Amino acid sequence: MNRPATRQITSAANSLLKLYRRALKDGVTRDGWLAIEGPHLLEEALRPGSRGVVRSVLVTAHAAAKRPDLLARLPCEAEVTQISAAIFRQVSQTEATQEVAALVELAPPSLDSLLALPDALLLVAAGVQDPGNLGTMLRSAHAFGATALFALRQTVSPFNPKAVRASAGAIFHLPVAASLEARALLSRLRENGIRIAAAERASHKALTEADLRGRLAILIGREGSGLDPELLRVADARLSIPIRPASDSLNASAAAAIFLYEARRQRGFSY
Amino acid sequence: MNRPATRQITSAANSLLKLYRRALKDGVTRDGWLAIEGPHLLEEALRPGSRGVVRSVLVTAHAAAKRPDLLARLPCEAEVTQISAAIFRQVSQTEATQEVAALVELAPPSLDSLLALPDALLLVAAGVQDPGNLGTMLRSAHAFGATALFALRQTVSPFNPKAVRASAGAIFHLPVAASLEARALLSRLRENGIRIAAAERASHKALTEADLRGRLAILIGREGSGLDPELLRVADARLSIPIRPASDSLNASAAAAIFLYEARRQRGFSY
Repeated sequence: MNRPATRQITSAANSLLKLYRRALKDGVTRDGWLAIEGPHLLEEALRPGSRGVVRSVLVTAHAAAKRPDLLARLPCEAEVTQISAAIFRQVSQTEATQEVAALVELAPPSLDSLLALPDALLLVAAGVQDPGNLGTMLRSAHAFGATALFALRQTVSPFNPKAVRASAGAIFHLPVAASLEARALLSRLRENGIRIAAAERASHKALTEADLRGRLAILIGREGSGLDPELLRVADARLSIPIRPASDSLNASAAAAIFLYEARRQRGFSY
Repeated sequence: MNRPATRQITSAANSLLKLYRRALKDGVTRDGWLAIEGPHLLEEALRPGSRGVVRSVLVTAHAAAKRPDLLARLPCEAEVTQISAAIFRQVSQTEATQEVAALVELAPPSLDSLLALPDALLLVAAGVQDPGNLGTMLRSAHAFGATALFALRQTVSPFNPKAVRASAGAIFHLPVAASLEARALLSRLRENGIRIAAAERASHKALTEADLRGRLAILIGREGSGLDPELLRVADARLSIPIRPASDSLNASAAAAIFLYEARRQRGFSY
């Protein structure tokens, strides 16, 4: 078993624990490492093909004894720190934490490479505010084989703890770029010959009437108000999901899932 | 203006306020009236075609002055009670409450009538645990013109405050029946000639390969574990959404949205 050496910390005032507490609240450390809680997310971070490198694990003796296999799969460089359940509760930000937390380094993706992919299928979150929605969008994007998720400025962070939880681990598998400037991104999409399909509730053109095959970016706007007029203006197609005329719009993450599904359906679900 | 008479309450110990506090936490009063917060949900409860009858409104002077139109649209029988912002905060269960709360009577739908509808398109939540997911399912079901949402036992309540918020008001427009016994419901679906399509991640048959037209019930299972084997066994079709083989499943509400979308797409989106 190549399980890394474990050290113990007994004081909640320890600097590592302070770092964890803050990072678990913000979602990331100052160095940009993702802070996660729970064995499921750690499992995802360790799965083959994960883009994340686990750097540090915080665990209680109980949780370590319960999941020896999980700890055995950590990279040798990972630092494992054991603390008491009482201290864990002070560090943790969730109720049902299961006494495992970790810091994971996620290499930022190369925008150039992503935009050059011959099968580029991008989901662009343009103003989405709810972290649960953004995380669910990440999960759907990964499930439907999107090549990346881009989050524009004025959009909730994909590294928000709630977004990471809602992604169900997809954050470790799908390249994600955040805080992108809208105008600059749209120019680069154009330069790279990627068509831009904007979700617009009021559009008379249904997404089923559009050809969603080929290199494509799907833009999903803010809950309630949708996409900014400027983004709508530059889109190659403004498309609606044909729901009942009298009804309210769909949830942003439901709309994203349907756009991704339809784009895949038109491609015959070949992955 | 047929605005109902307003009375004032100045003590948080008042029995009406106790009733509100408890109901806003549980989602319903003991009589089964829905307890809602915020002007948006009240707006939805008052919209033409709403299945809800507003019985009582709790409001601050500030909020009442800000939204005279909303209060003017209340039915005459509705009891309006004015309280201070300080007392409102003690009653409220949400952070950004906007100082409006209400009790709304929702007539329980007739299962017999719903099952007899010639265009029956039912969404059945069979074990969904997250109220946000169930509420989003409600919203999607309404948007795609489903005729009702049924929630089985062992499923989170559609009247849970988080579910009601996530429904974005669809709870007032779509007939909803809760705590249904699985076996009894499935028998009645059969008796009424309604086909049962079960969402199953592991199924080799894709939902696009099935005929989803005609009278149909779509079964969505529990997050993570999916539908119970017993429910899968009695379904007429067990269908999967063709996602990438290596990826995790979709969020339950995203899966529900896609099933509803595909069922509507096959019907040519006629509402």
